[in-house]
Amino acid sequence: MSDGPAAPGGAAALLPRGVLVVGTGLIGTSAALGLTAQGVQVWLQDVDGGSVAVAVERGAGLSEAPPESPDLVLVAVPPAATAEAVLEALRTYVDATVSDVASTKARLQREVEALATVASDQHLLSRFVAGHPLAGREVSGPGAALPDLFADRVWALTPSAHTEPGRTDLVRAVVESLGALPVVTSPEEHDRAVALTSHTPQVVASSVAAGLGGLGESEVRLSGQGLRDVTRLAASDPRLWTDILTSNAEPVADALDALIDRLAAVRDGLRGGSPEPVLGALEAGVAGRRLVQGKHGSGPLEFAVVAVTVADRPGELGRLFADAGATGVNLEDVRIDHAQGRPTGLVELEVAPASQAVLAEGLRAAGWDVRG
Amino acid sequence: MSDGPAAPGGAAALLPRGVLVVGTGLIGTSAALGLTAQGVQVWLQDVDGGSVAVAVERGAGLSEAPPESPDLVLVAVPPAATAEAVLEALRTYVDATVSDVASTKARLQREVEALATVASDQHLLSRFVAGHPLAGREVSGPGAALPDLFADRVWALTPSAHTEPGRTDLVRAVVESLGALPVVTSPEEHDRAVALTSHTPQVVASSVAAGLGGLGESEVRLSGQGLRDVTRLAASDPRLWTDILTSNAEPVADALDALIDRLAAVRDGLRGGSPEPVLGALEAGVAGRRLVQGKHGSGPLEFAVVAVTVADRPGELGRLFADAGATGVNLEDVRIDHAQGRPTGLVELEVAPASQAVLAEGLRAAGWDVRG
Repeated sequence: MSDGPAAPGGAAALLPRGVLVVGTGLIGTSAALGLTAQGVQVWLQDVDGGSVAVAVERGAGLSEAPPESPDLVLVAVPPAATAEAVLEALRTYVDATVSDVASTKARLQREVEALATVASDQHLLSRFVAGHPLAGREVSGPGAALPDLFADRVWALTPSAHTEPGRTDLVRAVVESLGALPVVTSPEEHDRAVALTSHTPQVVASSVAAGLGGLGESEVRLSGQGLRDVTRLAASDPRLWTDILTSNAEPVADALDALIDRLAAVRDGLRGGSPEPVLGALEAGVAGRRLVQGKHGSGPLEFAVVAVTVADRPGELGRLFADAGATGVNLEDVRIDHAQGRPTGLVELEVAPASQAVLAEGLRAAGWDVRG
Repeated sequence: MSDGPAAPGGAAALLPRGVLVVGTGLIGTSAALGLTAQGVQVWLQDVDGGSVAVAVERGAGLSEAPPESPDLVLVAVPPAATAEAVLEALRTYVDATVSDVASTKARLQREVEALATVASDQHLLSRFVAGHPLAGREVSGPGAALPDLFADRVWALTPSAHTEPGRTDLVRAVVESLGALPVVTSPEEHDRAVALTSHTPQVVASSVAAGLGGLGESEVRLSGQGLRDVTRLAASDPRLWTDILTSNAEPVADALDALIDRLAAVRDGLRGGSPEPVLGALEAGVAGRRLVQGKHGSGPLEFAVVAVTVADRPGELGRLFADAGATGVNLEDVRIDHAQGRPTGLVELEVAPASQAVLAEGLRAAGWDVRG
């Protein structure tokens, strides 16, 4: 974070001088904090005056109305209120670029375009650059906001055919100044992608977890890390996710259709005694898993596992990771598979395949119980 | 592990003096190593003489035939060969208890009973105690065997109505002596449980991953840790899993039917513009997720998260975990969410809710960038 008023890096020249943030919840206030820290003038607005007061107290910006048109209006209100707030911003500030943060984009774009048509203000759309930061927390509101909430997170931008390219460049510069990674795509491609990468996984995790309802406690014990992984998302907030899913209804329904077809093919193969569809589904899964992004945006990676048995007491993990660090090997991922009923756990360290032997030997030399 | 010939703990009195292990792969050889280490006399048998030689060289037991009937025969051959090997053991060693390690149980029980009926040897079944250790490795064969492979792992035992209770007690003592946690249930309940807790999650993970096939690289970036969690199992070996799934075909097909019904209800709710089925599915998922066992066999737990931004270089994690250990807080789980395109990552430390503030404050005091 910069101390002075100048923004870091090459984005400085493009950064807006003044930004109006409409909606001082977690996302809006976090963006306001990050922009203020770079010396950008930020004004704050919310239907809830108490929320604005908290944001102001945290140093996110000013509660008064902008004395002149801001360069950018960032609309960060709840999804259902976004389209009207976007249109109002476009009409009120006739030179401003307007963006938003709603998690689905095609329906919003249609709603904004419909409102602009009613207003006979089709040219307003040239200043609208829709967006979606893939960041969040388990807590909400301006009190939970963080200036670095978007650091290293993808922030999708979905300009329409009406959008002037220079408007997209401005929003991209703002996104980058907040440390986020802009990905520019169309509203429809965005929604289809998040239906597959985020919304369908949520429905699946919840549905698999729901199927456990009939099991007794000892039967649920007949499970391992795999079930924990698959059902982890099922702990998400049902009301929030109902809003998200209904706002992307058709792409999610299409993705569920395709998923149901694949599951039904496996089921029919199992009932019909024919293993081919089962094998085919599993092989397609291996190929799909390779697409799931590894670290560093460098594309798909396969990691090797070094498994270590660790006593389940404070300090043991610290000692393990210190010894792992001493080998010079970088850890890509860590999983702790707690033993059921015992004060020990199995820690799986994922590393680049070329580093596996170095790490395993280094940990053994340090006295660790490395499996294999 | 005991140094001398006596077995540890209360299981000593019940431990068999002699055990024949049929099948010297990963599971059989691991059990043989664990039993030999406790002073139990182990004999080894396999259709592959080379495999037996490796196991003998590793000190797992003797390659000769037992001079008298062993107390226990542990059949650890591939699933398709298990029923015949079990019956042969029951007929050859007329006093021995016989167990196995196949990952599904009802079909095996039916096959063994059918073979016993053909042999007009229905009473043989009184000595058969089927089993399933929930343990494994990514590598196979006697060279990969470990004496502590079963430590802290659940080992299901599925005696039938024919099984003498004393036979189950013996196998339970052996399982406990290997450090495993016995869970006694029926073959049918076992298979229904693993269909829900293991087999269906595998099919789901593969099917969700398979659905990503049509996405471009930038679209796959519109995802987070959730997709990684849900699809992690999709990297499993397709041929191995085809065998497992077909051996439990009907329970898995039933579980897939129920899952498809739940997914279809969500899809229809989305298409029909009715949020109730969507909300209902998500709420049922929250309830189901609570059933997924936490650590210590102590029942369902909810953990609190302390999120820390960490530079992505060797040694940083070691420093973090050392500082976390110094707070005296025990870590329940760890997730590393690698930032895409940046040399930093977000480390999420899961702890008991009562410990969250202590850990967060301790790490901040040590100079860490703790979110929130």
